Amino acid sequence: MNTTVDVPRGLAGVVVTETALGDVRGREGFYHYRQYSAVELAERRSFEDVWHLMFRGELPADAAGRAAFAAEVAPLRRLPAEVAGALPALARATAPSGPLAGLRTALSLLGASAGFRPLYDLDPERRAADALAACAAVPTLLTALYRLGRGLEPVAPRDDLPYAANYLYMLTGQEPDPAAARAVEQYLVSTVDHGFNASTFTARVIASTGADVAACLTGAIGALSGPLHGGAPSRALDTLDAIGTADRIEPWIRERVLAGERIMGFGHPVYRTEDPRSRMLRGIALRFGGPLVDFAVQVEQHVERILAELKPGRELHTNVEFYAGVVMELCGLPRAMFTPTFCAARVVGWSANVLEQAADSKIIRPAARYAGPTPPRPVPVPA
Amino acid sequence: MNTTVDVPRGLAGVVVTETALGDVRGREGFYHYRQYSAVELAERRSFEDVWHLMFRGELPADAAGRAAFAAEVAPLRRLPAEVAGALPALARATAPSGPLAGLRTALSLLGASAGFRPLYDLDPERRAADALAACAAVPTLLTALYRLGRGLEPVAPRDDLPYAANYLYMLTGQEPDPAAARAVEQYLVSTVDHGFNASTFTARVIASTGADVAACLTGAIGALSGPLHGGAPSRALDTLDAIGTADRIEPWIRERVLAGERIMGFGHPVYRTEDPRSRMLRGIALRFGGPLVDFAVQVEQHVERILAELKPGRELHTNVEFYAGVVMELCGLPRAMFTPTFCAARVVGWSANVLEQAADSKIIRPAARYAGPTPPRPVPVPA
Repeated sequence: MNTTVDVPRGLAGVVVTETALGDVRGREGFYHYRQYSAVELAERRSFEDVWHLMFRGELPADAAGRAAFAAEVAPLRRLPAEVAGALPALARATAPSGPLAGLRTALSLLGASAGFRPLYDLDPERRAADALAACAAVPTLLTALYRLGRGLEPVAPRDDLPYAANYLYMLTGQEPDPAAARAVEQYLVSTVDHGFNASTFTARVIASTGADVAACLTGAIGALSGPLHGGAPSRALDTLDAIGTADRIEPWIRERVLAGERIMGFGHPVYRTEDPRSRMLRGIALRFGGPLVDFAVQVEQHVERILAELKPGRELHTNVEFYAGVVMELCGLPRAMFTPTFCAARVVGWSANVLEQAADSKIIRPAARYAGPTPPRPVPVPA
Repeated sequence: MNTTVDVPRGLAGVVVTETALGDVRGREGFYHYRQYSAVELAERRSFEDVWHLMFRGELPADAAGRAAFAAEVAPLRRLPAEVAGALPALARATAPSGPLAGLRTALSLLGASAGFRPLYDLDPERRAADALAACAAVPTLLTALYRLGRGLEPVAPRDDLPYAANYLYMLTGQEPDPAAARAVEQYLVSTVDHGFNASTFTARVIASTGADVAACLTGAIGALSGPLHGGAPSRALDTLDAIGTADRIEPWIRERVLAGERIMGFGHPVYRTEDPRSRMLRGIALRFGGPLVDFAVQVEQHVERILAELKPGRELHTNVEFYAGVVMELCGLPRAMFTPTFCAARVVGWSANVLEQAADSKIIRPAARYAGPTPPRPVPVPA
């Protein structure tokens, strides 16, 4: 390590890896998973199909392949007795920091309990098996922690329900409305991956050391929990609440934009067009209809007009957060579960990145430049 | 994000940040913490003094400053009742994956239980307070998990003992021999930080999202647990065991070197001289003396001679692992606790990096290059 390379701050634009998993094309308003438009996948396929695509490189070949994968992952939703037994104490202890800290802890526990081995010591099949087990257990962990935190017993998973329907079932104890289950499933598919970001990168850095799948995912959940990471769909809904009524939209938005404040749910660092996820989720919301959707559409129109007037030349549209919050609210998800629901889908994307990284034997280890006063300084013996 | 920058694989040599915490000078065989030679610190100062240096930018000014800091951190060793109550279940469940996975889970739990807030939402004092609490609790968590895993009750920390002595006390339930406590303390001081590596980088990436201290440290522990990260002092000791007796040293080593195998405990990617940590730890080992030390010195001499003969021109010396394992064995630490003991010191270094990173508002988010076939590919409707 004799030569050092200077790059933009925060490694912006620095290519750390090649990937076959997909990418985001900001100018085209397009992102894909292994060539397939993610939005088209959300429109046409199940969450399990996309999970299969991310893990195995292709969509299930036929109905038998779909059924076989669904039958493979469904039993993995059930928690080992030792993990289930520890969850009440864990829910109590993690309550002060919220559901992502709870999931971070519970998934770490699950991996340790299952005896996940370092990626470095495993063949690709065994690595994928550990990742499959982790992804399948996340909805069970999340819903159990949520219910325990409210004095309710966890609801055991049902093997006969698809992923999204089972998720809502474990949350409420009621078999969900099929339209709600399908809307959540479409949201989940659209959220599996979205180019390179800090949590995906974290998962890959940890994977590059050869650590186990739980170590990688635990780190990624930690990164996702950071306020600068983005991905908090409840914030946009909080904005709708704060505005309150249609007559207040115009003054509320104008005042904030003039004060230089950011309007939650608008703007994206990559998309120069409409966020394709936003367009899809707006469509889902309109399928449901109702006062919340009407209000959201009104707010969107006002904000776009005001931003075009006050910040001309900048393309500021709704991002994924805006209509994701609306859709999840319509489907009966509590706001505290919005980001955890995002996370449940994203663990599949992180896992696919971890499995891809594990095939590369090169550790990710950049350098730092010492910028303090010149050493050595003699160490004084304490008085 | 329109332009991308190509850099060496694994970001080798890519400067991701500036730091005032220290660096490693491989050609000089020197590393330092804030200008002070780490080895000199280990020889002259306590672990608490160095912890103060890393967190507050300077060594305690005088005896009163030392005492005040020691009195500040000692009570933080005690676990909140909810964490202590969850540890037996956690020890049982994490047993299959070993102590680092246990610590990863327990520290995640501790942070969530203490209600650690995102770094982004806190002032520097409050960030440091969370980090202080995490670092102080690590020995208590580690020793409790170790004892619970062996059917023993955890031993409560003692405020009147210095950090290292209390660590050994909580492990065994016996007040340690002062020479052993001091040797462990010197090892811990030498291990607080060592330039930039994958775990330190992981901690900083997570910190750059504004996530809480536990999220950062949990990720770093995950990275440390990777076999490619390095830092497993028990491996070198296992080598001594495998060689067995003095007459077997020569053929055992020669056979492995000729087969192209790496000898554990020898060689370092940065140092072109003797590893300064190795020199210091050899000195500590010689202070104890005895058959294990004699044997280790013999092995070191044989290996250096054989490597100089068979791999001329390469500077291959003992690294930190070699004598660290010997010293910890002499101090009565069980081998399963070697890497966790390393980790207990290193959380202080990671935390200092986290606090430094938190002062920078730029997220660390590199790019990936899509290298699969050209999208889009139409999504087939399932059969």
